[in-house]
Amino acid sequence: MMFKKIALIGIGLIGSSIALAARQQGLVKHIAVSTRKAATLAEAESLRLGDSYTLSAAEAVQDADLVILCTPVGAYGAVMAEIAPALKPGAILTDVGSVKQYALDVIQPLLPEGVHFVPGHPLAGTEYSGPSSGFAALFKGRWCILTPDANVDAAAVKALTGFWQALGSSVEVMDAPHHDLVLAITSHVPHLIAYNIVGTVDDLANDTKSEVIKYSASGFRDFTRIAASDPIMWRDVFLTNRDAVLEMLGRFLVDLDVLHAAVRDGDGPALEALFTRTRAIRRSIIDAGQETAAADFGRVTPPESD
Amino acid sequence: MMFKKIALIGIGLIGSSIALAARQQGLVKHIAVSTRKAATLAEAESLRLGDSYTLSAAEAVQDADLVILCTPVGAYGAVMAEIAPALKPGAILTDVGSVKQYALDVIQPLLPEGVHFVPGHPLAGTEYSGPSSGFAALFKGRWCILTPDANVDAAAVKALTGFWQALGSSVEVMDAPHHDLVLAITSHVPHLIAYNIVGTVDDLANDTKSEVIKYSASGFRDFTRIAASDPIMWRDVFLTNRDAVLEMLGRFLVDLDVLHAAVRDGDGPALEALFTRTRAIRRSIIDAGQETAAADFGRVTPPESD
Repeated sequence: MMFKKIALIGIGLIGSSIALAARQQGLVKHIAVSTRKAATLAEAESLRLGDSYTLSAAEAVQDADLVILCTPVGAYGAVMAEIAPALKPGAILTDVGSVKQYALDVIQPLLPEGVHFVPGHPLAGTEYSGPSSGFAALFKGRWCILTPDANVDAAAVKALTGFWQALGSSVEVMDAPHHDLVLAITSHVPHLIAYNIVGTVDDLANDTKSEVIKYSASGFRDFTRIAASDPIMWRDVFLTNRDAVLEMLGRFLVDLDVLHAAVRDGDGPALEALFTRTRAIRRSIIDAGQETAAADFGRVTPPESD
Repeated sequence: MMFKKIALIGIGLIGSSIALAARQQGLVKHIAVSTRKAATLAEAESLRLGDSYTLSAAEAVQDADLVILCTPVGAYGAVMAEIAPALKPGAILTDVGSVKQYALDVIQPLLPEGVHFVPGHPLAGTEYSGPSSGFAALFKGRWCILTPDANVDAAAVKALTGFWQALGSSVEVMDAPHHDLVLAITSHVPHLIAYNIVGTVDDLANDTKSEVIKYSASGFRDFTRIAASDPIMWRDVFLTNRDAVLEMLGRFLVDLDVLHAAVRDGDGPALEALFTRTRAIRRSIIDAGQETAAADFGRVTPPESD
């Protein structure tokens, strides 16, 4: 038993997976579940994700030793205004958001004395969202990044590290601006590009769009997975990590100008050189244990339904 | 038995898969394998992909009832100059290239009288290449597009249709320019974008690049699969389908300008609107039987090796 009571504020894919994994590992005695919408709360209850359920975040955090914000980043200000007076002295407060400097900027000023804020980001997820999409193994073999300020209680960082390790993750500590820059190119810009090309297809005339869907296995469908991620969560990522995203998008665009010109000019050697060096990166990712070596992701497409 | 002798000119992923599938289905008596490099030919022979092996494409096509060009598109001119005099009258000539107008432009003028050219494009593949990457089930449940000229012998089109159906594919016939435009947005531009972002990461300083590889499961790794595709094949696609690629890339870039501005201006409603409508496209692709509904492609990442 690591914590007597934890409070999950928000119960989507990440919140529900934490609930299931923490229960499975016997890490907590009581899981308080709170969310803003009554329908979502009822769904969480029917899935038996927690021990108590409330629409009031302030009520959920009462007496909690560990409070985990699992809402979109943009809700942090409102949630903190609500829960700050109810947080227990000595409690650990963390979050699971994809942008860390913004989390510090919003939460730190509202933090009551004696509460330890350790921002966190589990690099885990799927393209599905909501309480029914969670599963206990989500964090197994994945990274979780913590970005505490230098003056944060070391025991709190250690306790949270142990919690994530018990959920199956490897934990890294880094500073928030560095996290935001690395995630901008690793995660945020790839999502932006994927959303963009799927949007381009969505804008095509209906006949052509139908054909793109029909023949999507020739490349396009790979992009649709991350472009099916939660819209609110991703809206908030781009609203709160703007500078790092614009910096990395700028690099992508400069490179795309060069590649665009190579296509226009029919520059075979330039195309071949790029396409050759990009192959090595995938091999590095497989070697790092971050990707399957199976062809086509090991994907099994259902047989034609026609 | 559909054909007494087929000749495969080129024995990479597609050629080797045709050999294995045609054999498994008992469609042919003799498979002649030809390729330009001695090492590749030896590999094909050690894999027992064919019945005869030769470095001379002209020798391979002798007496063949069906000749399938499985080389990169850019090699078609040289291959045709070599094989044209050796093609049997009445033979069917086809290819598996990703660009169809170029195939017609290069092959048609060199076609001997009495040989039926039916351009083809199986929409199937993986990120691996070479003779050892082929497997008999590659074409099962996939589309194969044929783009014959209006004056081509209907019996030849019918015979080739039957061949692809026997390999497990559904066959569609369309005109070459339409194929090239649809594939530009379905396949070629997605590959270009994937190659580009992987190139952007490859250009980062070594420290940052290592971190991107380490944390790539947060989005980036999805792009690395198609950016690991065969460099020569893809160089030739962009050299031979330039106009359609530039047209579709132009649409993508206009959309990206708008999205870029939405991020810069912090336009939450615009971001949310785009991210919401892109979700529906993936659902359509799953409903069309072209994608798995399993979370994360059903991908199983190996556990951390550390």
